Amino acid sequence: MSQSDIDHLIQLLSKLPGLGPRSARRATLYLISRRESLLAPLAKAMAEAAANVKVCGQCGNLDTTDPCAICADMKRDPSILCVVEDVSDLWALERSEAFTGQYHVLGGTLSALDGIGPDELNIEPLVQRVNTGVIKEVILALNATVDGQTTSHYLSDRLSEAGAQITRLAHGVPVGGELDYLDDGTLSAALKSRRSMS
Amino acid sequence: MSQSDIDHLIQLLSKLPGLGPRSARRATLYLISRRESLLAPLAKAMAEAAANVKVCGQCGNLDTTDPCAICADMKRDPSILCVVEDVSDLWALERSEAFTGQYHVLGGTLSALDGIGPDELNIEPLVQRVNTGVIKEVILALNATVDGQTTSHYLSDRLSEAGAQITRLAHGVPVGGELDYLDDGTLSAALKSRRSMS
Repeated sequence: MSQSDIDHLIQLLSKLPGLGPRSARRATLYLISRRESLLAPLAKAMAEAAANVKVCGQCGNLDTTDPCAICADMKRDPSILCVVEDVSDLWALERSEAFTGQYHVLGGTLSALDGIGPDELNIEPLVQRVNTGVIKEVILALNATVDGQTTSHYLSDRLSEAGAQITRLAHGVPVGGELDYLDDGTLSAALKSRRSMS
Repeated sequence: MSQSDIDHLIQLLSKLPGLGPRSARRATLYLISRRESLLAPLAKAMAEAAANVKVCGQCGNLDTTDPCAICADMKRDPSILCVVEDVSDLWALERSEAFTGQYHVLGGTLSALDGIGPDELNIEPLVQRVNTGVIKEVILALNATVDGQTTSHYLSDRLSEAGAQITRLAHGVPVGGELDYLDDGTLSAALKSRRSMS
């Protein structure tokens, strides 16, 4: 086949996470059959994202402006800083609409196995931000994995002298979760942090 | 969030088959973090596909030329015509490299439930192609589903007067398949069409 344009598109699409060669072919046929309604708009949206999306110099979020819309929002509380591993975690917290402070994206976690030390992460700018004294509370919202918790402890040490309160997310039973399906660690954490019903 | 470019991209990506909102967000972050190596080339490939890909007027295949590369290939045997439901089936047969004749894409199957009759499919051009007399054999390579087989029988009737031999794909045990996992219909078809070992 000399369908170089189509093959090239399939090959690029198959590099996306969640799409293999077979689903990339399916997606390509789907796109070509919806040329005006999906393929052309998607091409345009990707070109615009490639041209316009920036990393926020203050928090590490992705947006079309720098500083990002969250950092620039005067209604958000600048005295509470939430530290997350990745932009996807920041988006998840924003979707929950439960947090109205500022964010700081680390860009990963410390990992001895993968050779990721403090210098590979966005930690030094975090320490500087906290040391300015504006921030009263730092919430370490890292994943509840071994690497995430190691990084939380490291950050807690590094930030201890700035005078801000350091907190972490609560561990416990997920809302809607059934005890029978939970692991021992979660159950024991939920039991340890039990709360009065009143 | 005012990340309109990013949200727009996520929303469009989530319309692809196999990608939901969550995997579209993941794919978007993946794309943005590989801006030069993947996002920009993918935007370009999609724009080119949107501009250049045509439906072949002869067989119904998708290509950047009309007639497509397969129809225009003088080395392929014009006396054998393989009828398939969709372009994806044509691609599958081409990947097998087992067929060197020409194709005809129906664009679907007859389906009383979905209200698809002969006029909705690429059948009249097929009858005309076969009636020219160049074609000696028509292979009905439709899916082995009820609709596919109904369509095969209908086409077999319609093409019976043209003088070409009408064949269909063999039913049987898939290569690498285990008898224990096969359905009764396949086993009985494989038994009925058993072949001499010599």
